[in-house]
Formats: sequence, structure tokens, C-alpha cells
Amino acid sequence: MAKKKLNIGMVGYGFMGRTHSNAFAQAQHFFDLNYEPVLKAACARNEEKLKPFAAQWGYESIETDWRKLIARKDIDLVDIASPNDTHMEIAIAAAKAGKMVMCEKPLGRNAKESKKMVDAVAKAGVANMVWYNYRRVPAVTLAKQLIDEGKLGKIFHYRAKFLQDWTISADLPQGGQGLWRLDVGVAGSGVTGDLLAHCIDTAMWLNGSIDSVTAATETFIKKRKHSLTGKVEPVGIDDASLFLARFANGSLANFEATRYARGHKALYTFEINGEHASIFWDLHDLHRLQYFDHGDEGRTRGWRSLHITDGDHPYMAKWWVPGLQIGYEHTFIHQAADFIDSLGKRKPASPTFKDAYATDLVTDAVLKSAKSGRWERPKT
Amino acid sequence: MAKKKLNIGMVGYGFMGRTHSNAFAQAQHFFDLNYEPVLKAACARNEEKLKPFAAQWGYESIETDWRKLIARKDIDLVDIASPNDTHMEIAIAAAKAGKMVMCEKPLGRNAKESKKMVDAVAKAGVANMVWYNYRRVPAVTLAKQLIDEGKLGKIFHYRAKFLQDWTISADLPQGGQGLWRLDVGVAGSGVTGDLLAHCIDTAMWLNGSIDSVTAATETFIKKRKHSLTGKVEPVGIDDASLFLARFANGSLANFEATRYARGHKALYTFEINGEHASIFWDLHDLHRLQYFDHGDEGRTRGWRSLHITDGDHPYMAKWWVPGLQIGYEHTFIHQAADFIDSLGKRKPASPTFKDAYATDLVTDAVLKSAKSGRWERPKT
Amino acid sequence: MAKKKLNIGMVGYGFMGRTHSNAFAQAQHFFDLNYEPVLKAACARNEEKLKPFAAQWGYESIETDWRKLIARKDIDLVDIASPNDTHMEIAIAAAKAGKMVMCEKPLGRNAKESKKMVDAVAKAGVANMVWYNYRRVPAVTLAKQLIDEGKLGKIFHYRAKFLQDWTISADLPQGGQGLWRLDVGVAGSGVTGDLLAHCIDTAMWLNGSIDSVTAATETFIKKRKHSLTGKVEPVGIDDASLFLARFANGSLANFEATRYARGHKALYTFEINGEHASIFWDLHDLHRLQYFDHGDEGRTRGWRSLHITDGDHPYMAKWWVPGLQIGYEHTFIHQAADFIDSLGKRKPASPTFKDAYATDLVTDAVLKSAKSGRWERPKT
Amino acid sequence: MAKKKLNIGMVGYGFMGRTHSNAFAQAQHFFDLNYEPVLKAACARNEEKLKPFAAQWGYESIETDWRKLIARKDIDLVDIASPNDTHMEIAIAAAKAGKMVMCEKPLGRNAKESKKMVDAVAKAGVANMVWYNYRRVPAVTLAKQLIDEGKLGKIFHYRAKFLQDWTISADLPQGGQGLWRLDVGVAGSGVTGDLLAHCIDTAMWLNGSIDSVTAATETFIKKRKHSLTGKVEPVGIDDASLFLARFANGSLANFEATRYARGHKALYTFEINGEHASIFWDLHDLHRLQYFDHGDEGRTRGWRSLHITDGDHPYMAKWWVPGLQIGYEHTFIHQAADFIDSLGKRKPASPTFKDAYATDLVTDAVLKSAKSGRWERPKT
Repeated sequence: MAKKKLNIGMVGYGFMGRTHSNAFAQAQHFFDLNYEPVLKAACARNEEKLKPFAAQWGYESIETDWRKLIARKDIDLVDIASPNDTHMEIAIAAAKAGKMVMCEKPLGRNAKESKKMVDAVAKAGVANMVWYNYRRVPAVTLAKQLIDEGKLGKIFHYRAKFLQDWTISADLPQGGQGLWRLDVGVAGSGVTGDLLAHCIDTAMWLNGSIDSVTAATETFIKKRKHSLTGKVEPVGIDDASLFLARFANGSLANFEATRYARGHKALYTFEINGEHASIFWDLHDLHRLQYFDHGDEGRTRGWRSLHITDGDHPYMAKWWVPGLQIGYEHTFIHQAADFIDSLGKRKPASPTFKDAYATDLVTDAVLKSAKSGRWERPKT
Repeated sequence: MAKKKLNIGMVGYGFMGRTHSNAFAQAQHFFDLNYEPVLKAACARNEEKLKPFAAQWGYESIETDWRKLIARKDIDLVDIASPNDTHMEIAIAAAKAGKMVMCEKPLGRNAKESKKMVDAVAKAGVANMVWYNYRRVPAVTLAKQLIDEGKLGKIFHYRAKFLQDWTISADLPQGGQGLWRLDVGVAGSGVTGDLLAHCIDTAMWLNGSIDSVTAATETFIKKRKHSLTGKVEPVGIDDASLFLARFANGSLANFEATRYARGHKALYTFEINGEHASIFWDLHDLHRLQYFDHGDEGRTRGWRSLHITDGDHPYMAKWWVPGLQIGYEHTFIHQAADFIDSLGKRKPASPTFKDAYATDLVTDAVLKSAKSGRWERPKT
Repeated sequence: MAKKKLNIGMVGYGFMGRTHSNAFAQAQHFFDLNYEPVLKAACARNEEKLKPFAAQWGYESIETDWRKLIARKDIDLVDIASPNDTHMEIAIAAAKAGKMVMCEKPLGRNAKESKKMVDAVAKAGVANMVWYNYRRVPAVTLAKQLIDEGKLGKIFHYRAKFLQDWTISADLPQGGQGLWRLDVGVAGSGVTGDLLAHCIDTAMWLNGSIDSVTAATETFIKKRKHSLTGKVEPVGIDDASLFLARFANGSLANFEATRYARGHKALYTFEINGEHASIFWDLHDLHRLQYFDHGDEGRTRGWRSLHITDGDHPYMAKWWVPGLQIGYEHTFIHQAADFIDSLGKRKPASPTFKDAYATDLVTDAVLKSAKSGRWERPKT
Repeated sequence: MAKKKLNIGMVGYGFMGRTHSNAFAQAQHFFDLNYEPVLKAACARNEEKLKPFAAQWGYESIETDWRKLIARKDIDLVDIASPNDTHMEIAIAAAKAGKMVMCEKPLGRNAKESKKMVDAVAKAGVANMVWYNYRRVPAVTLAKQLIDEGKLGKIFHYRAKFLQDWTISADLPQGGQGLWRLDVGVAGSGVTGDLLAHCIDTAMWLNGSIDSVTAATETFIKKRKHSLTGKVEPVGIDDASLFLARFANGSLANFEATRYARGHKALYTFEINGEHASIFWDLHDLHRLQYFDHGDEGRTRGWRSLHITDGDHPYMAKWWVPGLQIGYEHTFIHQAADFIDSLGKRKPASPTFKDAYATDLVTDAVLKSAKSGRWERPKT
């Protein structure tokens, strides 16, 4: 018997447009889904660029106005993969139209925008999710399992970094295709919303809520040419953002994100030190988890390098055989599969808009502390 | 304008049936192909197992007799992903029917079978390829580039291992679904054809032909229950296979494969030591290449860990952004894309049946030396 | 012709008494020294424990009162390897007596004590040094060379951690033999003076002075039995200490030390990200330096793992042959050799008491910020 | 009460003269010995070079003729650290004179020479030992413990390599100071006796005796200028030596040594795969042991990186505190301490001359097989 279809309207054709499209295309090849995801329509203003994207992914149709996309009766789910400054308006309209809404992270450009989005999906009662994809790296999901099982015991320390080096050149312009992340008007913030947000989402998922933070931010290159205006303009984003935090569970934490760490492309790492065990993970080798178990016999106690490719590792029974690794894009496939699997169930797949809003409260507190020079609490 | 279609008939629905199906499904999402691959028909004797496979991958039809598949006019390419003992017969018949033929490795169960297959595709003049997928790990392809550019200079040593540990238990039966690799009648040999063949294919691609070998093989568990007969029967395959080799270029080599290396799931590694530089690669971290350049300044000379995720690395411009790794299945996608790209061109995509036959001559020499106790030369 | 002797009076027989004794004993075996260091006298109150120590190291005599040691005419150099609360009094007295003074780190229990020690050696005009031994790990010394040569260019980030896990058990008492580091009265502070001080000394040596800090400290176990009183008493030391910093050169930094990082014994690491290159070092593999040079050709650019065992690496020409590593104690041997080599020269070997005082100003600012919740500046 | 003295006569002042001298000098600082080793006399023909060596190490006297050294009544132990071609004659004479004899490896230039040495010490009944120092790397000693405790179960595979790159340049002469290892007359063989001998000693200690081997050797540079004659002469040594082996316990092995592995300075590695666990060790990080225990729970099973610096690791209670590594020279210190500790006890410290002879039988078989092209058995 044919499965019920889940018709998807994709907004955006960039980097994230590709990861999301691939997620839906592949989910059905590897997971037993209750719905068949259909790439129904791709939407963007730039028709010239949209067409080859839609063709490559096999979208059945295109739209150049997201309002029209939302108005279509044959669209069940609107997936927002366009720049940050478009998230709020599209998400609220989609929710009002009764569509399920998925949104690339960060949810809004700040917690205020996000709050409106949370309210909109709550009011409409529609399924919603934010693409904090790193929760579904099998190694990270395993970390969650181990923590929830109590393997680490009381947590003392959490440590996360997201290091990149792609904006060091002063010749790099801000704004425009591929560079909107340097334009504060579009992005909302710099590495705080782009990279720290990932770290915070994972951290709160694994270690609970954050009580207070003290932060420092820096913009190393103060002015850059703007691609859209052609003029050299002040840079509004933060190039680096660091903060210390106290979690509600009493643990101390250390977060850092930067685009000025020469030699690192996308080095998202986190480490958790518990009473009985510790965990370390690294996006550059995402198929591994480092695990230290103090319960091991003394002479042979050491950090274990787990190669997360076995059938008893999260999600991995769906893929290949032990020893054969998966990559970055699979985190989105897992998220799409989990979202589809959650439809009609009591418990929504996380992170919901509400979960993502909690992260935005922390990033707002970080930016506030960087200005005030004081400890700040995430608050609504 | 719509692309010309390339209609694929897939034989087999197991592990390799999945990797090949995925290769064709994904190639068009990430590569600009001249042909649109179409999953036209899936074929296997077991209809019950074939149906869900065909549904999951979106095959348009199924066949339960490969002869019927080959007889279909709407099939352009027959892809053989079934056990080794079926390769020869299907490939020869497909070639005679004028179909392009792709075949999972090893080509035949021995060089004699392979020779017949080579002759058949030559006579029919059909495009052909063998799925030695590891040539298209971006890190391995980069190794090939560096060697061809002369970066290593004269080669002194080649070293390869393929270590697994999945058959250590004496309770594991031989034969049947998922275990035909332990049945010498189906597989042809043990780790020699299964694992060493990969090592040899890569080695000859990177370092040229092999002159002579001295080998040792071992079957640690002498008898196992056979899944099909239900009886305990002698084990005919080799559990471990090691050999020393001399290459035509004067370099010395060391090869080893085993399924009794506790702690290793699929640890295919190779290292090449040249006059000026050395290279090391490891399937367990396939997105990295270790590179040592003796030309570096003395104090800061050391092994470089290359994270093969940049746009100037082979194939990687087609995927994500720097720092984000791909996985095992992508090697098949690259191979499918290269094959399709080669259609109608003078130079076939490698490895062809003929290339794979050269590997079989070496594996035959290895098995012969293991019996004779003497150095043997690969020969037709 | 016989060398002039340098008669050493060693105060303390514990862990540091051993490393210092070994330093002087071995320096003459591997370095060409202008003076012959002589282990003249070992000094400690506990004669029973002192005697076997003195015998094992071949000290010519013992003293049980440091005042007597200082009073001896045949002592040229007083080396203080006793607990922190003894440093100030002994150092000042030794300086007044005209002895050269070497002192285990931290100099005083706080900057106020250290200032008096700096003044005393300045007034007496005696050679002085503090055993911040990690400057003389060959890999760390090489890092200094590379930075001074401008290989890194402008520095954006400095990151250091010192992670241990030996005090997690609540059953561990405070105070007494081997545990005085948990007694705030003796130690002055917890990990701030014990571990962060090392990180800060290296950081300021490599990256210049620190402008301001924001910090957090924590004492996870609030009460412990005191070994000397036998009573459960409040714990005065910090178990963990973290701070963010801004350096005078504009770089942002992140420091952390703790004794609650399960799985790490003495994991002192630092990383420096510059415009052109980056460096990473790790005490657990102290014979290696990780180096990334952005100037390398794109495809083969990666972190280099330098095995610091070659003749052109700092200090290594004095040891074995390439590939053969040295260990922890060698850092003290290098420091002893450098100190002896500097005698009679214009430029003293670093770090002097004055250099160590600068570190104490930072640790004081860290502790102050942890209380005030505000950014603090190191100041006299 | 003063300890009884053990007066040492050292023959040789080169690389090994230094490691042995250091071993005796340091053993008493870190181990509780029954005898006090005394550096009584250093001996070599070249007085000019001998004198500064003797002075640096504090030898009480020098001799320029080893016969005089042996004739001295105040010498208890003759330690032979001179080139291989001197070992036999000195050792036999020393044994005849009733001296204890220690000898740098390999024992003789071939098994025939070694046999005479074994007979001489047996006849004289003197304590004897060969400096196969790697047995006393704490990580390697721990490997021995784990194997002896049955942690690995039945052994399937042994794998060892010793890779260097210091003789690749064709301009390097053979013979003379520091280069006698390239002169077959002095060294006996090339990497087979120099490097493989180490691998074989460790292997037989850990895994029992070797039944048969098949080998290949190569001399990449066929002629080199000889330092002593000044003429270009054929090179008699092997630059690379590889062999496959079968052990008496049924395991298969793979050995390789070369001085043409660009990028490796002294990369001695071994791996042992057992039914239940596996072990890997690497001289370039000698303070670590990699350990895989199949008994670990499935999800968190992985290779453990053991940092061999704890008090319950072999020898380490004598050194520093957890996390602080030792280096290469310590292996000799441990051996000296064990030798002294064994004096007067029933069981001699290993490896004795007899143990080393067994290794020479294997190296002889390797060289024989490399010529015969057949499997050869080590035999007397």
C-alpha cells in the first residue's frame, strides 16, 4: 500500500537548501518512514539560480515568492533554508497558513524574533523543528544516551569550541551571496548566532540549562567592503565570542567560537567531565567519540577512541557495516527521518522552536555580557 | 532540455546492491551528468526480499531471473552486485546482449573466470567497470595526483593492510545470507579475494605492476557449520593472507589481510615511502591523508594530517564546505559519476574488467605461493 | 683544569626536591657547563625522611634548619623546593646572606609575598630564578622561536588548559605530606597558583602581557578532613579556575585549570592562532608540537605533528638521536643548565623572580575577578 | 651502612657508551639497589675522544686497551658498548677473566659468533646480559604482563616494523665514526641485525619462538664511498629487510625494517592481535600503549590510549607523578637496575646472552631466506 505523502516546500537553494533537500531525498532510502517525503516545490526570488537547483534535486515545481508557496494547498511543510533575516516572517506566515514549519538555525536573529515564531507555531498548533543538526551525529546521540544512563555521574565541567578560519583575510567583503553571514543586518550576529548557537544547543541538550554567563567578543577586522553597496562599511558582527558559564546543575563551562583560528575549518568540539567518566567529540572526525571510563582497571584505563559505525550505535544500523563511516550530511537525514517519524505522535521531535528559543536567550545574554562586562542571566 | 536516460538493471539487493543503488541515485544530485541514471529494474531470485528493496530505492520494476533482465530492451546497463559465483555468467551474458556491464569486485572467483569476462566485454565492445571503490576516496585520489606529479620521487616501500575481526567466533557458520564470504565455493577465496584484492588494486594503480610475491595464508577455524547444509564442514577459505612483493619499479612491499585482528573492523591502510615524501591513508578515517614532505624546513618538518574536505581536493567541490566530511558511500557515488561521465569518450573510466583481471593474477599468485612456499610471479 | 664548583643547598626532599636534585646531577652529564654543580647539602626539618633522600642523591651533608643552611659559607646557591608558605621567608633570608636563590613556583602565595622576594633579590643583587620548567620543554622553546621569528604573524587567539583529576574523591583529606596543595594556608590558592600559574607564565612569555581578565572559580568539595587537625574543615582552595583574558597585543584568550577533569592527569595544553600559522602543544605528549602553516600549498596543507627529537630542535643536540624522546624531568635539567650558563653574564636566565611576580599579579586578578564578577586588571 | 660497590668498566664512548653510563649513574638515584654502581673506568683506543667522555660522566680512570681493562682487579663488570665487530673478542676475554659481562645488541655479528660468547659466559659462570632495552619501556613491560595474565587469549597475529630514513642520501659514506652501521664488515648486517633484531627480541619475549620465515632484503644504494679507505665500494649491508613468520603458537607474523621510510626516524611499532584483546605500541610515543579489550560493552568498545605514567604501571612508581612522561634513556636505567637487582639471585635478568643468541638464529634465517627464496627455520 502506498504511503501517505508529505509535500515539502523548500525556501532557499544555498548550502542549507542542499542539505535539507538531500535529507528528505535520502531519508526514505535508509529509514522506514510512515510518510513519503516529496520535494514538491523549491522557492527563491532568483529564478535563474533556482531552476538548476530544482532540476538537480527533482523538485516538481518552483515558486519565486514564498507567499505563493505558502498559499499552495499541495504543500504540507514549509522548510526555511534562506538567510536569517527571512526566518521570522516566513515562519509566522506558514504557521498561520497551517503548514508544518522547519527552520534552519538560528531561529530568529535574536530572542525577540524567535519568541514571535514560537508563539506563532504554538497558536497554530503545527509541527515545528529547527535544524540543529549536530544532535544527530551518531556519536553525539550516543553521548546523550551515556549521560542519560548516568554513566558520567555528577557533571563538573563542560567545554565547547567552534573554530574556523575562513574570514581572516581583510579582503573578504561582507554581504551578498555566500557572505551574508558577515552582514549583521542579515545575520543578526556573527559567530555567536552562527557557531556558538550550535554549541549551546548541544550543551543544553546534554547538560541542562545555563544559569549565567560572562563573555567577551571581538571584531578583528573593523571595516569591510559591502558586496551590495560596494562601499567600505563598519563590520557589525562579532568575529570571535567567548564565554564562561555556570549551569543549573553546578557545572562550570567554557565556550568559544571564532572565525580567526588559523588551521581549523569547522572544528566544533565538546568535552564533558563527570565524576565517573568523560566524553570528547570533534566535528572534524565526527564518526568517533572519545570516552574515558574511570571504572576500568587501573593499568589499562585510558581514553577509548570509539569508532561509531556499529549496529548498536545510534542510527548506524540503517547504514553500512562496522568500520564504514558516514559524514556530515547524514545528520540532516537523521533529523528529517526523526521529524517524519514523530508526526502524529504525542512527543514532538526536538529541537522544537521552543527549544531553539532557549538557545537564543543564551546567545542574547552572551552579547549583553560582552557589552556590560558583567555576568548576565538568560531571561525572557 | 531533458537529459538522455541511462537505464540500470541491478542484480542483487544486499550490502552492495544498496551501495550501488545509492551511487546512481545520488550521483545526479551532486554531479553534472550527461545522462540521467534511472533505477529501472532490480533483480534477484528471492522476490520477498527483493520487493521492499526495490520499493525503498524506487526501482520502477523487478525481475526474479537475471536472464529476463538482460533480455529487456529498456535496460542499458547491467550492474552485478550479487555473490562472486554469479559474476562470470551474468557478465558474459550481459555483454553478449550488448549491455554495459558493471561488476562488484572481485571480478571472477579467480583469474581464469575473470579472463573470460574480460574477453566477453572486449568482444562485445561494451563499457565496463569493476567497483574497486577505494580509488575514489578523495584522499586516495589525491595520493594518486601527488605521486603522478612526482612529489614522492623514487618509491622505496609500499605497505598495505586490511584488518577485520568479524569472523573470530567459532560459532559463526559459513554460507548463506550475509555469510557467503566464508563459503569458498561461492566466494572463490577468503580474505585474499575479499580484502587483499582491494589493497592490490589500489597498489597497482598507485605504484605500478607487481613482479613477484612470497605469501602465507592461514585458516584459523578449520571447520564451521554450513548454513545451507546444516552440517559442520571443512572451511575452504583463507582467514588471513600475507605476502611480500617486489614491484616492477624496484620497491619492496608488504601486504596483509585478515579477519582475525581483534579491534579492527575495516582497517584498510596503506603507506608509500618515496625519496622525497611519504603518504599514509586509513579507511577508518577516510577523510584524512597523512603526508610527510621532506622538503619542509627541518625544525617544522613533520607528518601533516590533511583534512580532505576542501574545494581543491578531488571531488570535494561537489559536496559541502571545508571541514565537513563525507563517508564511505560517496566513493561509489564518485565512481558512478565518473563512469557516466566517461560514456562516449575515448578513455574508459578505470578500473575496467581488464584492470581488475590484473589484480586477480596477483591474488592467484599469492594463493599459489602460499602453497608452494616459493616466490611466484603473477602471470596469465 | 678543574671547573669552579657551584655548591647547592637544597631545601625540601619531596617531588620537587627530586626534580631539582636530578636537574643539577644530570646537567653536567649532558651540557658543557662553566661550573660544576655540587649537591652540597640537603635541608628539611624531618631528619628521618631527609637522610635517605640525601643518600640517594649523594648530598654531601644535611641540615635540619634552613637558617643553618643559609649561614654556611660553603653554600653558593639556595634552592627552595619546600611548600609555598616557606618560600618568602627562606628566599629573603638567603638573598640577604648573599646566596643565589632558586625557588619552585609559584614564587609567593600571592603577589604581595612575591613583591617582597623580588625586592630582596634586587637589593642583594643575587642571581635568581623560578622553576617554571615548561618554558624549557624543547617543543615549547621551539614555539617561542617560531613566534619570535614572526612565523605566526599577528596573534588572534591564545588558549590554555591544565586539567587534572586527582582530587575528585571526597575522601581525600587536605593538608599534610603530599596534600598540602589542598590546604589554602600552605598553598595560598588552589589550581590558580598551582596550575594556572604555569599556563600564565608560558602565555606571557610567548604572547606578552595580559591586560584584563574575567574569571570564575569553584570549590566542588566544600569540606574535607584536615590531615593535621584530624577535623573536617572548610576547604579554602579553588578546585577549578577559569578566565577569559585580553592581551596587550589585542588577542583574546581562554584559560582553564581544574582538578576535576576525569581522565586527565596533567593535561597542560596551549594553542596559539596567528594570522599565518598556529601552534598546539600538550604536556601528555610533550615531545611533540603541532604546527599549521597556512603558507603550505592548498591541497597538502594540514596540521604537522612535529616529533621534537632532532638535533636542530632546542636542547635536543645534547640528548640522543632523532626519534628518541626525552621526558618531563629534562625540562628541569635544561633550566639548571641555562641558569649555570647565565652566571656572570649580563642577561639573567628567565624566568627571574621579577618575571614570576608578573604571573602572580595575574593570578591575583583572576581570584579577584572570581569574587567581584567583573573584569579586573593585573596591577601592582 | 655503605652498600657494596659494583665497579664498572665501560668499553666505548659513543651513543651507546652514553646510554649505558647514564643507566648506571641514574639507577641509584631512582631505584633501591643492593649494590652501588661505580663508573670505575672508561675504555677506548682514541684517548683524545675518551677523555672528555670520561670527564663528563665522572669515570674514575681511563684505559686505551680493553685487555688492560679486563686485567684490572678493581673491575667487576665489563660493559661492551663498542661496534659489533669487537663484541665477541672482548666478551669472551672478559668472561674468561671472571668478569660479569654486559653487551650492546646484537650479541655477535652472526649466530656463530654469538654461540661462542654464550659458551664463554656459561663456562665462566658469570652474570651476563644484552642491552635489548625496549623490553623495559614501561608500556612494553605492561604488554608482557597483560599477555602473561591471559588478557589476550590465543594470539592470531604479530606485526612489527622498525622504520628509519637516515641513509636515503646516496652521498652518505659507509664506515667510520657514527657510520660503521653501514659497513658490513663491522656491523655484520644492515637493518636485519640493527633494527629487526630489536623487533625479534621483543616478539619472542612476548609471543614465544619463531618456527620459520620467508624474507626479502634490498640494498637500494649499491655503492658508497668508504670513510676509511676513501674509495667508492660496494655496500654489503641490507637497507631493508622484511619477513613473514610462523610462530610456534600458530600465530602469523609480519616483520619489516628499513632505513628508507621517509618521515620515520625510529618508528619501532608492534601490534599483537589476540582472541580477546589487542595491543599496539610505538617507539615514537613510547609512553603510551594502545589497548583494545573486546570484553568492553559494545557501544563503548574502542582502542584505549593508555598513558603509561601511573604508579601501578611497571617501573613508574619510581619516577614522577601521573601524567608526567619519561623517555628513551630510562629503558637502559631500568635494565641496569634489574641487572643489579638480579645479582646473587637464582633467576638471571633477561635477556641473557643465551636469549640474544636465539634472536641471532632468527636473523640468520632471515638473511638465508632472502637468498634462497624459500622458507627457512632458525636453527643452531
